[in-house]
Amino acid sequence: MTSRACAMARQVLLTVLLSAAAASAQTADQLPSWNDGKARQAIVRFVERVTAEGQPDFVPVPGRIAVFDNDGTLWSEQPLYFQLQFALDRVKAMASDHPEWTSEEPFASLLKGDVKAALAGGEPAIMKIVMTTHAGMTTDEFDRIVRDWVRSARHPETGRPYTQMVYQPMLELLAYLRENDFKTFITSGGGIDFMRVFSEEVYGIPPEQVIGSSGKTSFAMRDGVPLLMRAPEINFIDDKAGKPVGIHQHIGRRPIAAFGNSDGDLQMLQWTCLRPGPHLCVFVRHTDAEREWAYDRKSSIGRLDKGLDAAADSGWTVVDMKADWSTVFAPVR
Amino acid sequence: MTSRACAMARQVLLTVLLSAAAASAQTADQLPSWNDGKARQAIVRFVERVTAEGQPDFVPVPGRIAVFDNDGTLWSEQPLYFQLQFALDRVKAMASDHPEWTSEEPFASLLKGDVKAALAGGEPAIMKIVMTTHAGMTTDEFDRIVRDWVRSARHPETGRPYTQMVYQPMLELLAYLRENDFKTFITSGGGIDFMRVFSEEVYGIPPEQVIGSSGKTSFAMRDGVPLLMRAPEINFIDDKAGKPVGIHQHIGRRPIAAFGNSDGDLQMLQWTCLRPGPHLCVFVRHTDAEREWAYDRKSSIGRLDKGLDAAADSGWTVVDMKADWSTVFAPVR
Repeated sequence: MTSRACAMARQVLLTVLLSAAAASAQTADQLPSWNDGKARQAIVRFVERVTAEGQPDFVPVPGRIAVFDNDGTLWSEQPLYFQLQFALDRVKAMASDHPEWTSEEPFASLLKGDVKAALAGGEPAIMKIVMTTHAGMTTDEFDRIVRDWVRSARHPETGRPYTQMVYQPMLELLAYLRENDFKTFITSGGGIDFMRVFSEEVYGIPPEQVIGSSGKTSFAMRDGVPLLMRAPEINFIDDKAGKPVGIHQHIGRRPIAAFGNSDGDLQMLQWTCLRPGPHLCVFVRHTDAEREWAYDRKSSIGRLDKGLDAAADSGWTVVDMKADWSTVFAPVR
Repeated sequence: MTSRACAMARQVLLTVLLSAAAASAQTADQLPSWNDGKARQAIVRFVERVTAEGQPDFVPVPGRIAVFDNDGTLWSEQPLYFQLQFALDRVKAMASDHPEWTSEEPFASLLKGDVKAALAGGEPAIMKIVMTTHAGMTTDEFDRIVRDWVRSARHPETGRPYTQMVYQPMLELLAYLRENDFKTFITSGGGIDFMRVFSEEVYGIPPEQVIGSSGKTSFAMRDGVPLLMRAPEINFIDDKAGKPVGIHQHIGRRPIAAFGNSDGDLQMLQWTCLRPGPHLCVFVRHTDAEREWAYDRKSSIGRLDKGLDAAADSGWTVVDMKADWSTVFAPVR
């Protein structure tokens, strides 16, 4: 080897080794939007423990499953769940084909702009809105409709696209976990096919790692072309006691980390953390009326009441958005 | 750098580069149990096309989804689906707790060893056997029961453990696809939780990539411990027109490659291949009475009739086990 070749070899080797070192040092520097406090420390300590080979809490890579609620945990949910906002926008877009809606509730109130009156019909009214706007089309057609909405719709208070109302600290957390060989899943009460449209681009979570509520679909051949039709019938509600069921159905093993923000996530956290072995359970608490919203025990959306008590009982981590996050929303792209 | 340090650097660099080269050369040398014929060529050509960056059929990694039926595609299914054999073994194991079964069909016939008479009751009889043996316990308990059975049970004709009646060429194919950055899924009519017990060890397919039929489960807290109970109620049948539905529910995008062996897989292949863009559809045809079994259009188990016609119409690949495979079963470990 000539000295020049040797220098080159050294150069290349250094580059290789440095990039390897960079890849293995998955430190918490990747959580810049998290202030140094109990929540951040609990997360980092947990990740360090389960990735320390040879240590008692080491978890081999296939077992590193982390599940995340979506509404209120990864993106905002005020003043109305974003998917419900999508449904309301769809009702308006579809109204010209449905003259009968001017005298049929909950559509009539909605079209007059009175969301409160429309939703006063409770769950049956909401189901009617959801079924009308989410069924009666193929899966490909629904996908396209959601894609168009995501691109054009704006949040009524902030004017941001909905997919830019995601929490920057949670994006950093997702990336931090994945770089430590966790597989990250969404486990949301929201619609599985609604979230899948943007989950990969926004969260880096591929469609096959999204779990959510769903309607029934049926397979058919139309003019030699296969399709899946969305039927106006509920298949599965991925909320409360449904969350562990959905996790078992889709993942087939118990997560070791779970992140939620409301009582709808309580059973998911119980399933993840009330057992032997290393585990991490985290509630995000909405405490920042200035930068986001502040609500918990008495909110009709995203109520966190029993969950707060359970967290205190079991020593789970509670993120105080105001104190723990230096940034709330990812910068506008 | 001293000459000794230089030699060392060169050595290390060579090792690094050689292992990188080995990792990127995903040639078809990994299919040693496939004879050189149309089937092997179709598979290799497809993989080369979709992995050739810059070429018209290139598919980015996230879209490389391949789905596999299990019974008759990855392991044998004669003389009886192995999971049904599991259920029959369980009936025998549970009989001492059920004295009433000596006079109650289909259990009475089963316990007398007359499987044919027991199954003469058709689907209701089979459902009764399956529900009795697959429900009324927690998911953890069921997992343990299947694990014990897999370890101890032997195939009635070959005397092999069931998990050693898997097809060596298909194991090579799974590995070949994964080394080309495919994500491999099982999409079987068999029970999702039954297959998950051995899918990772036997096929290298983790539980979250197994799709199958399932019963309903429900979440409960018992003495402060969370559990999922298996209810004697069908949740989903992952067969025929159910397969595209299950694929959509679990994966959320269309596969580009599908492998089956019976008419139960026809709709899965239609969903995968009757569309624009690169795709590969393969039926495994059981043609080897000597090394495995020979059956197709008239078999009650794993009938391949409409599928053969569809394959001819659409130019799908049909694997002739006898001609295309130099080895059928993986060597006994």
